[in-house]
Amino acid sequence: MPDTGHPAAPAPLTHSCLSHQASAVTLPESLLFVSTLDGSLHAVSKQSGDIKWTLREDPVIQVPVYLTEPGFLPDPNDGSLYILGGKHKEGLVKLPFTIPELVQSAPCRSSDGILYTGRKQDVWFVVDPETGEKQASLTTGSSESICPNSPLLYIGRTGYMVTMFDTKTQELRWNATYNDYSAPAYDEKQDYKMAHLVSSGDGLVVTVDRETGDVLWSQNYGSPVVGVYLYAGDSLRHAPHLSLAVETLRFLTFSSASEQADSYSSLKWSYQFVKEQASAQTQLVPTLYVGKMDSHLYASTSLVHHGVSLVPRGVTLARIEGPATEEVTVRERGECEITPSTDVRYPAGSTTSSKNHWLLIGTLTQTHTHSNGLPDPFEYVC
Amino acid sequence: MPDTGHPAAPAPLTHSCLSHQASAVTLPESLLFVSTLDGSLHAVSKQSGDIKWTLREDPVIQVPVYLTEPGFLPDPNDGSLYILGGKHKEGLVKLPFTIPELVQSAPCRSSDGILYTGRKQDVWFVVDPETGEKQASLTTGSSESICPNSPLLYIGRTGYMVTMFDTKTQELRWNATYNDYSAPAYDEKQDYKMAHLVSSGDGLVVTVDRETGDVLWSQNYGSPVVGVYLYAGDSLRHAPHLSLAVETLRFLTFSSASEQADSYSSLKWSYQFVKEQASAQTQLVPTLYVGKMDSHLYASTSLVHHGVSLVPRGVTLARIEGPATEEVTVRERGECEITPSTDVRYPAGSTTSSKNHWLLIGTLTQTHTHSNGLPDPFEYVC
Repeated sequence: MPDTGHPAAPAPLTHSCLSHQASAVTLPESLLFVSTLDGSLHAVSKQSGDIKWTLREDPVIQVPVYLTEPGFLPDPNDGSLYILGGKHKEGLVKLPFTIPELVQSAPCRSSDGILYTGRKQDVWFVVDPETGEKQASLTTGSSESICPNSPLLYIGRTGYMVTMFDTKTQELRWNATYNDYSAPAYDEKQDYKMAHLVSSGDGLVVTVDRETGDVLWSQNYGSPVVGVYLYAGDSLRHAPHLSLAVETLRFLTFSSASEQADSYSSLKWSYQFVKEQASAQTQLVPTLYVGKMDSHLYASTSLVHHGVSLVPRGVTLARIEGPATEEVTVRERGECEITPSTDVRYPAGSTTSSKNHWLLIGTLTQTHTHSNGLPDPFEYVC
Repeated sequence: MPDTGHPAAPAPLTHSCLSHQASAVTLPESLLFVSTLDGSLHAVSKQSGDIKWTLREDPVIQVPVYLTEPGFLPDPNDGSLYILGGKHKEGLVKLPFTIPELVQSAPCRSSDGILYTGRKQDVWFVVDPETGEKQASLTTGSSESICPNSPLLYIGRTGYMVTMFDTKTQELRWNATYNDYSAPAYDEKQDYKMAHLVSSGDGLVVTVDRETGDVLWSQNYGSPVVGVYLYAGDSLRHAPHLSLAVETLRFLTFSSASEQADSYSSLKWSYQFVKEQASAQTQLVPTLYVGKMDSHLYASTSLVHHGVSLVPRGVTLARIEGPATEEVTVRERGECEITPSTDVRYPAGSTTSSKNHWLLIGTLTQTHTHSNGLPDPFEYVC
């Protein structure tokens, strides 16, 4: 029918589709995606780190109920779990399973009478790469129409929720949700040219050229960075990042700056040096950073240099790798692939090891350092 | 305070707990648990097969929306998937992944533009073993208090939901939910003395003594049996069961009966004979049974004897094992553990194999057999 002058019925979908076809498109390949603890996914320029747009979702770690001791500290980088104050007073130790592994193994019942209940829920965010506008969210419960002609990003995210219910005390012992973007690892063959150094406890990211060591850019995203991604082959790809203490990242950056007396953005700063230091463990020491967000604690591995003061914990250790305990990590076909238990036994002698027994403690935006004394580290968590 | 004669505040929990303490308890070890397609879990006597109580839950397979061809036929025994009418007109073929595996791998996007979205949700049913009364249901969203003193069964069930959304056509292609009880396999070392023979398409179960071949009992639970469980070591354990065509199970039973002219319950019937026949594939042939429940089709493997007429499908096959296709079943660390695709390529020659190319078709309560002609098998599904 010809136009009669009457107002047409609204057709937002078609309109939206047409407007996207006409606009210049920022190729997703030119973007980096930075996931932060508070649940933001920042699409940033690969060249400058400047934020183009931000997707705001639920925080990476959610601990709705924090009930009884011993508590568990999740690692927002991969969903690992650390237990605080085990049966044998080991201090802070890593458990041999992650939250996603627990959810996969549930429902199961451990020998100490804990019922593990899991929930895994995927969601696809269908996003305009130009504006960051969310066109649709696809879950198992809902699916909406999407403009078929506009180039769109498909970003998959999974929420893993686990509940531990103690049948002896009839109490919920712990529950938590860990949210993770679905992203296969970046193909190493493709020769990724950047290295992303992130600081534990704040949102600082220093991106350097892998070969020359040039600092390409530095940005602060306001919340600790837990993942850096590229968009390649129609999906997010996990790019490697290295976590360092705030002081260490600043120390290295400023050391470089004073040596060169150059502008910040063109600092010559040897990434190779950092890597060698880290692997030799001479000056950069692997530690566990304990932070706080909202009302819960979390833990993540972090490299520190020898100038950063730490809280040693006597014979306690925070092992980065975690132990393999024969009768705890049971794999039996058809059964729970892992039999969860917090009764982790460390090999004899390992709890008095002189390596990896440092604990760096801070809050979300501030790191507390103490250069003397051996206080209870948890006094320093605000 | 002493009793003043005023009505006391209701205390249902305490009352309930006391009543359970006083009652005689049926040991769960004396029970078998029979899961049927309609979602019932019958607790039955090991001695007679008589139903003690029944837990009614959601059906094992739920296909809320059945949209476009090609359709998928789930196997309610393990969540396997068969595809009907693939790209190359292979007929009915088994896909190299199950619904639980798809849910574990999701969210992922296949090369043909399908977005897979998954959801896994556990629930614990806390059940009085005497009455079957559900005391509580524990999920990640809720947890109720349970009487700590009464002996209770903890039965874990997981719902796996998967959605396939086609980004090219902007349509939901398929979705389904598969519900499965959490039950490790029964320990073979414990010498399980019974063999459960179930019929495809109806709820008949014939339980025989593994050694003597005596028929111990026979019951019909009204809906096809998809799992038989014991309760051992504080959890359900999966007991093995063998699926046969209704006609085959009746034929074997009646053959035995006429030979012996004995009472039904004491039939001498060689279970070993059945097993040998099945393994030699001389008279008992592995087939795929296609049934219908509510509005959707399902498939499950089934043994038939040579008297049962089948619908051969020309060069089509219904492979029991399913193929391993190099580029479809990709395993890459960090990525979708399986890359789902329906583009399954069978090795050359396998589609004209003379083995396993039979298709037994029936409805939920009735099996149609045809002794001549080579019609399209799906004409016979009511």
